[in-house]
Amino acid sequence: MKTIAFDVMGSDLGLSPAIGAALKILNEKKDLKITLVGNKTEIEEELKKQKLASKLVDRYEIFPTTEVIKMTDGILEIRRKKDSSMAKAIQIVEQGNANAIVTGGSTASFIAGCHFILKEFEGVKRPGFMPTIPTVIEDKVVLLLDVGANIENDPEDLLDFAIMATAYSQSTKGIAKPLVGLLNIGEEKSKGKELQIETYKLLSENPKINFYGNIEPREIISGDVDIIVTDGFTGNITLKAIEGMGKKLLTEIKKAVTKGPFRKIAALSLKPAFKEVASKFDYKNHAGAILLGINKIAFKSHGSSDLRSFHATLRMTYEAIENDVDNKLRKSLKEFKGS
Amino acid sequence: MKTIAFDVMGSDLGLSPAIGAALKILNEKKDLKITLVGNKTEIEEELKKQKLASKLVDRYEIFPTTEVIKMTDGILEIRRKKDSSMAKAIQIVEQGNANAIVTGGSTASFIAGCHFILKEFEGVKRPGFMPTIPTVIEDKVVLLLDVGANIENDPEDLLDFAIMATAYSQSTKGIAKPLVGLLNIGEEKSKGKELQIETYKLLSENPKINFYGNIEPREIISGDVDIIVTDGFTGNITLKAIEGMGKKLLTEIKKAVTKGPFRKIAALSLKPAFKEVASKFDYKNHAGAILLGINKIAFKSHGSSDLRSFHATLRMTYEAIENDVDNKLRKSLKEFKGS
Repeated sequence: MKTIAFDVMGSDLGLSPAIGAALKILNEKKDLKITLVGNKTEIEEELKKQKLASKLVDRYEIFPTTEVIKMTDGILEIRRKKDSSMAKAIQIVEQGNANAIVTGGSTASFIAGCHFILKEFEGVKRPGFMPTIPTVIEDKVVLLLDVGANIENDPEDLLDFAIMATAYSQSTKGIAKPLVGLLNIGEEKSKGKELQIETYKLLSENPKINFYGNIEPREIISGDVDIIVTDGFTGNITLKAIEGMGKKLLTEIKKAVTKGPFRKIAALSLKPAFKEVASKFDYKNHAGAILLGINKIAFKSHGSSDLRSFHATLRMTYEAIENDVDNKLRKSLKEFKGS
Repeated sequence: MKTIAFDVMGSDLGLSPAIGAALKILNEKKDLKITLVGNKTEIEEELKKQKLASKLVDRYEIFPTTEVIKMTDGILEIRRKKDSSMAKAIQIVEQGNANAIVTGGSTASFIAGCHFILKEFEGVKRPGFMPTIPTVIEDKVVLLLDVGANIENDPEDLLDFAIMATAYSQSTKGIAKPLVGLLNIGEEKSKGKELQIETYKLLSENPKINFYGNIEPREIISGDVDIIVTDGFTGNITLKAIEGMGKKLLTEIKKAVTKGPFRKIAALSLKPAFKEVASKFDYKNHAGAILLGINKIAFKSHGSSDLRSFHATLRMTYEAIENDVDNKLRKSLKEFKGS
């Protein structure tokens, strides 16, 4: 049996989509249990509204808490609000009563909480947020990190990211030698700031990394590489740029193909085609990011997650548990670092 | 009469698209002359192939040069290769024999050449590359800078960018109070690195800047602001991310709507709709970037520019001359800086 401690409070749309998604994934995965962490009354009321709740009653339980970490809370609130749903959910994992935590709450508090309560892997200074991004190649995704757990990173952090993402890719995707690219403004090794130039050296010198070289942001979704490493600021900027462009361009096309009655008719028969592309590149289906570098499996879903986003994140979390990701990462780090 | 000194050598596709674009714009703008700077024999041979050449013979001349700056040349080659087409084209402008320079050659050499020969405006430490990016709002563009003239910038640079882009927007777009956004990972003023936090202060305290606040990369093409300032590394990453995503997503949609005979038929009648969107967001139509901060008008076209790209860049350059951009910028800088 696998267990997820799910902080259902603190995200933008309230706890209804979180609980809906929890029941949906429980209905799909028979060897999964979920601990719903949050305000008991609110959770119970929401469960009453959900059709699947009575059928799945044996596979979820409520862990009642009285406080909530707000999006605007400082990072230290996770230490002050001892009975917050986020702090308790992390503790449940720390005490071994769940295999993984999922939250849609404050990113800064989540990173702080994981750092204080779960700690980083031995030898890892800073964890990185790693989402899974679809590429133009069928069924191929690319892992990008860090996308915002940090503001600044040094070359050693980026090497750690490459090592951990390699192990993650091997264990969850079954890719024997994942190809690692370094996000940069040009292909030549002399390009970029000191961070990129130094990281290029570290990655190319490490025999355990299958290094592709620099990759330009134009090629992120080309599917040329399996992993792209960068610092948290640049990764966050890049992720938001491609998400925004994708979403806005699809809206523009929708507007153009439904301009006037003639186009509308033709567009109707192409609806499935548009849906295919839109669904593939809709970031709501890729809303989850693992906090890679933390001793346990810790997933963050977008603050504005709806049912579909939470469901996608819970599915990724389930797969991470199934693939024993935390233990494999710990083992790989030891091997890679030769300690 | 307006004159452009056009370095037709050194871009990726040879001088054919450059000369084709020069003749096309000459045919459109009757008060324009172009000095084609480069290898005399090659230019003459290309002109023989072009239909418009004989008709427009009074409005172009060849300035013969013997050397070419290569894409792989170091930045100091512009000083060593004294008879390169790029160095000569810049000198022609410096000597007052043309109003503006255009090149598709090496970016690093171009920045170095403009710095050595034309110099920056008084009080401006570093110029910035500023492309014009289409937005989802009809006929509204956003100016983004710097996109790669620099690797590192300080808050004063970003303030200079904001001032110069404001003056540019006022003089070429006729926008009285252009809205300036600061590219960042979040909306709150505490977000980002020291560069963003300090720049936020400078921009919000300056009464001559119409400051919007931080803008996230998701909203670049929303049309919410007229100008977005950032450092050269982040700007280059962002520009390439949105360009790449735009291009790849359009290809994906094309593939999806032509899958199978039934979709193909429907897609045929929607071709104009796709073309509208593709042409609007095709970066070939927005391939030119002004090097803002240089004493004269200096435009760079993508290294891989085709005829359409060069033509778009020449058109922007013509408009900049028409609007007396360099003199207006000089005047605005004095007013803004209160000197």
